[in-house]
Amino acid sequence: MPTVHPFAPLSGDEIKAASTILRGAWPTGTDVYFKTVTLEEPAKVEAIPYLEAEHSGRSLPTIHRRAFINYYIRNTNKYHEAIVNLFSGTVEKNVRLGPNVHANGDAEEIIAIEKTALEDEGVRAAIAKLQLPKGTVVIVDPWIYGSDGVNDDDRMYQCFLYMRDPLNSDEADSNHYALPLPVSPVISTETMKVIRIDILPTGADNTVKPLGPMKIHPANEYIPEAQTLRTDLKPLNVVQPEGASFSVNQEGTSTVLKWQKWSFRVGFNQREGMVLYDVRYDGRSLFYRVSLSDMNIPYADPRHPFHKKAAFDLGDAGAGIMANNLKLGCDCLGSIYYLSAELSDDKGGIVEMPNVVCIHEQDAGIGWKHTNYRTGRAAVVRNRELIVQSIITVSNYEYILAFQFNQAGELSYEVRATGILSTQPIDEGLDVPFGTVVHPGVLAVHHQHIFSLRIDPALDGHANRLVYTEAHPLPRSDFNPHGTGYTVQTTPVATTGGYDLDTQRNRVFKIENASSRNPVNGAPVAYKIVAPPFQHMLADEDSFHRRRAEFADHDIYLTTHRDSEFYAGGRYTNQSRGGTGVRSWAARNEPALDKDIVVYVQFGINHIPRIEDFPVMPVETLRVALKPVNFFDKNPALDVPPSEQAFNKSTSLGVQHHQGESEAKIGAQGEVCCPPKGGASKL
Amino acid sequence: MPTVHPFAPLSGDEIKAASTILRGAWPTGTDVYFKTVTLEEPAKVEAIPYLEAEHSGRSLPTIHRRAFINYYIRNTNKYHEAIVNLFSGTVEKNVRLGPNVHANGDAEEIIAIEKTALEDEGVRAAIAKLQLPKGTVVIVDPWIYGSDGVNDDDRMYQCFLYMRDPLNSDEADSNHYALPLPVSPVISTETMKVIRIDILPTGADNTVKPLGPMKIHPANEYIPEAQTLRTDLKPLNVVQPEGASFSVNQEGTSTVLKWQKWSFRVGFNQREGMVLYDVRYDGRSLFYRVSLSDMNIPYADPRHPFHKKAAFDLGDAGAGIMANNLKLGCDCLGSIYYLSAELSDDKGGIVEMPNVVCIHEQDAGIGWKHTNYRTGRAAVVRNRELIVQSIITVSNYEYILAFQFNQAGELSYEVRATGILSTQPIDEGLDVPFGTVVHPGVLAVHHQHIFSLRIDPALDGHANRLVYTEAHPLPRSDFNPHGTGYTVQTTPVATTGGYDLDTQRNRVFKIENASSRNPVNGAPVAYKIVAPPFQHMLADEDSFHRRRAEFADHDIYLTTHRDSEFYAGGRYTNQSRGGTGVRSWAARNEPALDKDIVVYVQFGINHIPRIEDFPVMPVETLRVALKPVNFFDKNPALDVPPSEQAFNKSTSLGVQHHQGESEAKIGAQGEVCCPPKGGASKL
Repeated sequence: MPTVHPFAPLSGDEIKAASTILRGAWPTGTDVYFKTVTLEEPAKVEAIPYLEAEHSGRSLPTIHRRAFINYYIRNTNKYHEAIVNLFSGTVEKNVRLGPNVHANGDAEEIIAIEKTALEDEGVRAAIAKLQLPKGTVVIVDPWIYGSDGVNDDDRMYQCFLYMRDPLNSDEADSNHYALPLPVSPVISTETMKVIRIDILPTGADNTVKPLGPMKIHPANEYIPEAQTLRTDLKPLNVVQPEGASFSVNQEGTSTVLKWQKWSFRVGFNQREGMVLYDVRYDGRSLFYRVSLSDMNIPYADPRHPFHKKAAFDLGDAGAGIMANNLKLGCDCLGSIYYLSAELSDDKGGIVEMPNVVCIHEQDAGIGWKHTNYRTGRAAVVRNRELIVQSIITVSNYEYILAFQFNQAGELSYEVRATGILSTQPIDEGLDVPFGTVVHPGVLAVHHQHIFSLRIDPALDGHANRLVYTEAHPLPRSDFNPHGTGYTVQTTPVATTGGYDLDTQRNRVFKIENASSRNPVNGAPVAYKIVAPPFQHMLADEDSFHRRRAEFADHDIYLTTHRDSEFYAGGRYTNQSRGGTGVRSWAARNEPALDKDIVVYVQFGINHIPRIEDFPVMPVETLRVALKPVNFFDKNPALDVPPSEQAFNKSTSLGVQHHQGESEAKIGAQGEVCCPPKGGASKL
Repeated sequence: MPTVHPFAPLSGDEIKAASTILRGAWPTGTDVYFKTVTLEEPAKVEAIPYLEAEHSGRSLPTIHRRAFINYYIRNTNKYHEAIVNLFSGTVEKNVRLGPNVHANGDAEEIIAIEKTALEDEGVRAAIAKLQLPKGTVVIVDPWIYGSDGVNDDDRMYQCFLYMRDPLNSDEADSNHYALPLPVSPVISTETMKVIRIDILPTGADNTVKPLGPMKIHPANEYIPEAQTLRTDLKPLNVVQPEGASFSVNQEGTSTVLKWQKWSFRVGFNQREGMVLYDVRYDGRSLFYRVSLSDMNIPYADPRHPFHKKAAFDLGDAGAGIMANNLKLGCDCLGSIYYLSAELSDDKGGIVEMPNVVCIHEQDAGIGWKHTNYRTGRAAVVRNRELIVQSIITVSNYEYILAFQFNQAGELSYEVRATGILSTQPIDEGLDVPFGTVVHPGVLAVHHQHIFSLRIDPALDGHANRLVYTEAHPLPRSDFNPHGTGYTVQTTPVATTGGYDLDTQRNRVFKIENASSRNPVNGAPVAYKIVAPPFQHMLADEDSFHRRRAEFADHDIYLTTHRDSEFYAGGRYTNQSRGGTGVRSWAARNEPALDKDIVVYVQFGINHIPRIEDFPVMPVETLRVALKPVNFFDKNPALDVPPSEQAFNKSTSLGVQHHQGESEAKIGAQGEVCCPPKGGASKL
């Protein structure tokens, strides 16, 4: 049995052992409600020597395995943070957190909230006023909520109510988001009682009308049996007759992936889901750790109670615990390897999470091509990608999250937003500027999706810097007499802080190692960050939304590394009040040149719903790419074997195909239209 | 034999007939040098009734077939534009163009220029001064050039010289761009003589040093036999056991494509290559005509003679005539249908262009997904795309151009830039801010690629308007007490002109039909334009570069339709001087609401070369998407059959796969991790 790798997620046995040790710190019979039992990652000062020893084949230092634990004393507001040393069997830290710190939600709790809402007499009385048809099934969507300065110390859920299609009440997968109700109970998680029932405004202003008989609109279902399906789509299979090109080495819970000169470890935890560690290309270090740090989704409707809708899907819920069990042949094509995980449950036990990550290759079109028009010879390679993907369901929405590696040394992070819009009732015939009517009586409010990708770089070592380049026109001069010249300037980012893109200056951020130079052109080795610009958070500077989503106001945040600073919106986002995330860390204003830096890349969309996004939305795709800039000494994909029919086995359709015919203007191999050979002179 | 469709490209017979008719307008024996013989598209006033008759099954009006012809009287500067009526056999227009109007280059001419350069005594004498090794093969890259106000009325080529690897002179595909020479002859096409030999500056300033013995740097080859190829890439085949899902109907030279509710015609011409006509979805009209209108590539080096490098790859050369003969299994995977074309040659005959367009389907990952966490049931469809692709080689560079259709009613245009950087010699050890040293002695100068996609919309008819939406924060008020609200405002673009994106306002341009309303929410039906923002042209406002590339200074140009206004940089771009493209048309400042509008979408990259872009560059991908906004009444991909293993036939690898196992927290079909059923209340 090899030593447990410091980046290996906690095993099921470790989770149980840590829970037992923690419980031992309390009097027997104390009902501990575990929110998270997860790996406490080692301090970098320990981890780096370990990695160095690992890669040089030296003997490995011992690093203690530790668990990070959040828990409540059940049915109280006593929320704690603890660190358990699994090696020594001791509780190294155990503190009660302040009244303004709240835990994430979990599945157990969400189900309990749903039941509480539906069993409440007041809620039942409110629903009765709607005079829904007999047999109607009401569905509850509990929402973890933002802050507004009012009773934020009380941990609450706001519930949005919907109904199934009353004409088809037995259909458990009826799209209830097409039939929203105006009743919204608020529940305290301390007492598990309804503390308030909000009636939702359904007009253009913030007037709340008394409840009365509800007009029942038609359903709008997304399940296939409710559709007349297309019949003209023919199968497209990805066949890998020799299997996949990657190798997976399972070292306990740590997964080592190798593919096309890439090597890295995949971790998985409750909060971030997939994490990449120790990413290397051809043996050279690129990134120490890469993960989605958090996301925030603020909504545009300013009216009570919608003004608090601003979910942190990672901090409030968790990309790990919400991960789908991926199904063969549905979520990816080709030869697929699945990773499973064990996460903690509320009792210190285990939730089995099968198939939460799928690993497969995909063809991404042509990788590079050149045709020499003089000889007609085409050189072409395809761009094979390795995809490491996880899909999360956060109530109504889905996110398809994927790391994508290619053969040109590029690592991308792709997000596809899909799923169902969060909806609310609106009076018929109305139109409001903060949302789109997507179905009769149904408003889908505008909202922003703002993501923060955390990159802890290690380009040829840990002392890296952030710089940006800009392209500027040259002024007219004797050197530039025609006004056509331009130059590129590089500006080092000397201190931590928040920084922005500037399209009209072609501002591009790069992570550099200033002491590692390209052997050909002497430039510092670098990776550039290619992220699409996005509209920063619209909520105003003093709003709780803006204060809480500490990453949402800049394209880039730069910090220097501190152990346990992982989450751009702060560790505890539920009903948070700001001051604990990346904006605060960056505000330390520390020197950042040639330090152990961490870069947070923000990206997102302002989702102005279209009717085409309902009842389920076509994927909206975003991608951040990390691309080498003078890191290698030539195109890293130069050695990819040529794209050839013998390898690819494609099929020609139809009569137009003249392949391989000899024609006057076709090159020897029939590849390309080319003029007769010419234009070369032998001396 | 059906009537020839008005959008059908000229057939070979028509090209020959038109040439013959044109020649008949000149005295016998006149040597006509044809530059283009191509379809003169019918006036819209004729074409629209034709399409209406076609789609309603009424009898089709007759539209005369016409050829548009550009020609020289050979070995003169007498350049002409003519229109020939093939129906009546008459020359309807035949005018000599002004001295400042020059033709595109063609393959025949380029070969002749190469020979002229190499056979010139002065050029040979200059090369001799370099004292290249015996047996060295010198290669000539002729460049069609920009303008600088000096002798622009003389049509010229500037030639850049390179050599093959002198250690491997017999390798015809040696990458000569790795070995640039400082000698640059200029040739008049009127006299076909060298009129000047420029010596290139190779330092940091504009000093030109006398020619002397050249240091020979090592080669840098891209051909596979020069590499140690990877051996660990396993085959990935796309298999379509029942064939493709599209149908192709070849009506003479007009190709009618039908796929997944889409229908459209594909045309192909010398200049634009692929053109889409009469694009419809589910029978509803979307676009009258879509094509790449032009592109411009200005370079950053301000020094003579590089200050004139600013190619229009369509206007100066032609995306049709430069199209590759695509090879089965190399350029796409799966079941592929190829289109071939016939274009005109310089003598009024035909150039056969086999396999210039490939048509195939591809899997583009998940199209939409939702999992009901209460039941664990996942509904998921994949996103199948139809790709209509052409690849062009313009000397050193390649562009992979593709129209992409999906099942959600989206039409995208993708450009992948690849190929080889245009290089020039640089003194060893130097570094300049307007380029990157990519190999010893080799400078790749920064340059912009600025594309213009021309969209002639017909959303539910031809009276359309351009609008833009912006998202603005609401001011604080009783309605917005927490500062979280925001709204979307729509601004109609009332007059033709140039318009820009604004990320921080989330400005999105849409094409609308104001008189066609969505049946559910009453919004005008629309398609939005999703284009990445790009840095506009850096050359200054008074420069020839800026004046010529009339599209390069705004993200969007809007005009009202005029027959024969197709090319954003003007019809004649070679050594052009501006005033004839979209900036000039837009400056008519015409009312544009609910008119027959044309929208030009600009996009591009500022290519700051990396060493990783040499000796051949990994694809740099750009994409413009046209997406429905309240055009349909729900997600158009809702009726796509579910993604299922029985259809997709994927393969599971490795031991981690728990598919289909029954676990406490897995839904009935084993699809997803889900909590036990709960949270529904039956009334």
